[in-house]
Amino acid sequence: MNGHSSSLRPPSSSSSSVSIEGIKEASSSVSIEGIKEAADRIRPFVHRTPLLRCSFLENSILGAAALVGGGGAAVNGSADEREGPGVFFKCENLQKVGAFKIRGACNAVSLLKQENPETAAVVTHSSGNHAQALALAARLHGLRALVVMPKDSPKVKVAAVEGYGGEITFCEPNQQAREDTADLLLKKHGGTFIHPYDDTRVVCGQGTVGLEIAQDLKGLDAVVIPVGGGGLLSGTAVAIKALTPTTRVIAAEPVNADDAKRSFEAGEKKLNEAPPQTVADGLKTNLGDVTWPLIRQTVDEVISVSESEILSALRLVMERMKLVIEPSAAVGVAACLRPEFAERGYKRVCVVLCGEEEDDEEEKKEKEEEGKGSFLEKIEGGDGLRTQSRIDVKAEGREEEDEEEEEEEKEEDYWYNPRYFHRKL
Amino acid sequence: MNGHSSSLRPPSSSSSSVSIEGIKEASSSVSIEGIKEAADRIRPFVHRTPLLRCSFLENSILGAAALVGGGGAAVNGSADEREGPGVFFKCENLQKVGAFKIRGACNAVSLLKQENPETAAVVTHSSGNHAQALALAARLHGLRALVVMPKDSPKVKVAAVEGYGGEITFCEPNQQAREDTADLLLKKHGGTFIHPYDDTRVVCGQGTVGLEIAQDLKGLDAVVIPVGGGGLLSGTAVAIKALTPTTRVIAAEPVNADDAKRSFEAGEKKLNEAPPQTVADGLKTNLGDVTWPLIRQTVDEVISVSESEILSALRLVMERMKLVIEPSAAVGVAACLRPEFAERGYKRVCVVLCGEEEDDEEEKKEKEEEGKGSFLEKIEGGDGLRTQSRIDVKAEGREEEDEEEEEEEKEEDYWYNPRYFHRKL
Repeated sequence: MNGHSSSLRPPSSSSSSVSIEGIKEASSSVSIEGIKEAADRIRPFVHRTPLLRCSFLENSILGAAALVGGGGAAVNGSADEREGPGVFFKCENLQKVGAFKIRGACNAVSLLKQENPETAAVVTHSSGNHAQALALAARLHGLRALVVMPKDSPKVKVAAVEGYGGEITFCEPNQQAREDTADLLLKKHGGTFIHPYDDTRVVCGQGTVGLEIAQDLKGLDAVVIPVGGGGLLSGTAVAIKALTPTTRVIAAEPVNADDAKRSFEAGEKKLNEAPPQTVADGLKTNLGDVTWPLIRQTVDEVISVSESEILSALRLVMERMKLVIEPSAAVGVAACLRPEFAERGYKRVCVVLCGEEEDDEEEKKEKEEEGKGSFLEKIEGGDGLRTQSRIDVKAEGREEEDEEEEEEEKEEDYWYNPRYFHRKL
Repeated sequence: MNGHSSSLRPPSSSSSSVSIEGIKEASSSVSIEGIKEAADRIRPFVHRTPLLRCSFLENSILGAAALVGGGGAAVNGSADEREGPGVFFKCENLQKVGAFKIRGACNAVSLLKQENPETAAVVTHSSGNHAQALALAARLHGLRALVVMPKDSPKVKVAAVEGYGGEITFCEPNQQAREDTADLLLKKHGGTFIHPYDDTRVVCGQGTVGLEIAQDLKGLDAVVIPVGGGGLLSGTAVAIKALTPTTRVIAAEPVNADDAKRSFEAGEKKLNEAPPQTVADGLKTNLGDVTWPLIRQTVDEVISVSESEILSALRLVMERMKLVIEPSAAVGVAACLRPEFAERGYKRVCVVLCGEEEDDEEEKKEKEEEGKGSFLEKIEGGDGLRTQSRIDVKAEGREEEDEEEEEEEKEEDYWYNPRYFHRKL
């Protein structure tokens, strides 16, 4: 595939086709130097996202002694001058395309064009933020983005990719059809496949989140990062450990998609039992062959959180910080609110609000049906949309510690997503 | 009242008791010097809120030619270095207590303590952000805050004020009872009454929003500010006109509470026909006797927007900017999206996302009933809450340009507020 060892790295679920050599080569090429180069490369195209604070959450996370005064949020610019206790939220939900994905996509596309000026197109199969990010990154670099999407994808997702200039090819809604169709496009149009996370160029791009954190915040005790496929986690962890080795890197994931925790404990990559049932759409993915070795080397701990903890954290961020986040981003906040986190006694913490959407198409048909005719389409005429995360109304397997609480949660499942509100479910 | 001409300024609806002398004195004491002094005074207690951008909204407001690339948001720190076209959102929704109100309250309390170190208490009647802001400001300055609230106030609002250390005295739910009870408290405990907006100290505090904008953003064509009582508008306008006289100051308000527009056109203060029906709770208030003369002198234009425009803008900000705002804050965004705004050809604009809640208690009983037993109480145990804005489900008198669209809106009225979602209306 154009001589790039990772240019057509298959998803980890079919990783047998990736050689050990390939993995080693890929992992070793994610370094702080690579991340700094990525930062220079993507600077014109992405936001340096703000670090915000919220007294209420700070109080909840660090304990009452740590802070002064009421609610609210906002640190801008002067964050590096601040010392002492604090919880800082790295707002990748305010990033272009609504997620950190644009960082990795831009780095991959830019590097690709630099190494091979003849390249005319990038290819991917995804309907999540990666597809939109890759489409925008390609447009910004004058390349075509060929995106494979299942034929039953919700209109809003299709419109979002098209809005960023992506050219969509529809396929049957299964993994094999997606891969086959992507292969066909590669054969027909040439170009290079860009994986959403298991690609060193993408990981270096996501790592710029960690670079910015280390530059803006000195003396951090811990950085908390949600983990799905591990692109954001591995890149950020490499940057943090290179620049501030004493800072603990903590991964956060749903109990219901705890492949990272189990991998961490076993010392070898474990898969989720497919398909994981969690509101945190973006974190259902398994760790990748590029990301897992990096995570094993750099991450200190994995904290897993229940579905009710994710929803509580989501509400707190919306209520208290006035930020709209996706459930995946709430996972890191939920981890900080767990008793085992409080026991560590951290005084200066950064939490990445990732803003990530599912790239996995399995079992989505039912949900997609519900997404049709949403108010998003109505108010924006289906033009240039960015899709929203949706809470999986059918989510099963949540922790059942408290039946009454569970009952309440079922009722509240709909509260986050305007699509459901509009339908008055 | 302790020798402060504005210390017990009654609401504008009973303004006959305020002398012309008093008004002139008050208005003339709101100056850029006063605002700069306020900034120094409140700096330790409030956030310098960030300026965020959103490509999608920028595109919608300035036209397609003005920008590059996709959605997302975020300017931090380096805003003053940026030149050229742009729409910048001044995020007072990320301010402490969730609104700019803390600025005015802090300035008033701080100035009061400076002028009269013996002062032990501040008094107000309010259940909106002002009550919470004053309670926090008083606590931060070691004073008592005595807050009069109607006895049927929602628990969440009571808890919010108590959470910031306010001492609540309940009264009958009408304006006369509120004023009488406040007077009683003043007689019994001493202290000083702090009006939510019609007080020069408060106006100077709110004016720090304009000061920060002028410091952070050079060469602005226009600043857009929602107007209710006019504290934020008048203070910000004074700062902007003093520092960048060529910047146009544009007020935004609901068509259904258009006292500012009618006052502006008539050249004299006009009142709303009580009570205005709008989702923008915080903008129902009439202009004050301090604020109106300042507005007349400094504001260039008033744009009024329909209820459907407010709701559309609210959705766009939540969907595209990932920010939770109250309907009052959406009014400024809605004004920028109107055709008459586009016709001006502005290229560099700042919109204040105010984050403001109603201070007016009239006709709230019905809504308050709906607020009871909200999930806020459940998830936070009624401790130290900050209240949320609510969309007035019973809102009448919205523009009826399109029956079908109106029908849709009724369905969607509930989407914003988790309280309603929880109840699956």
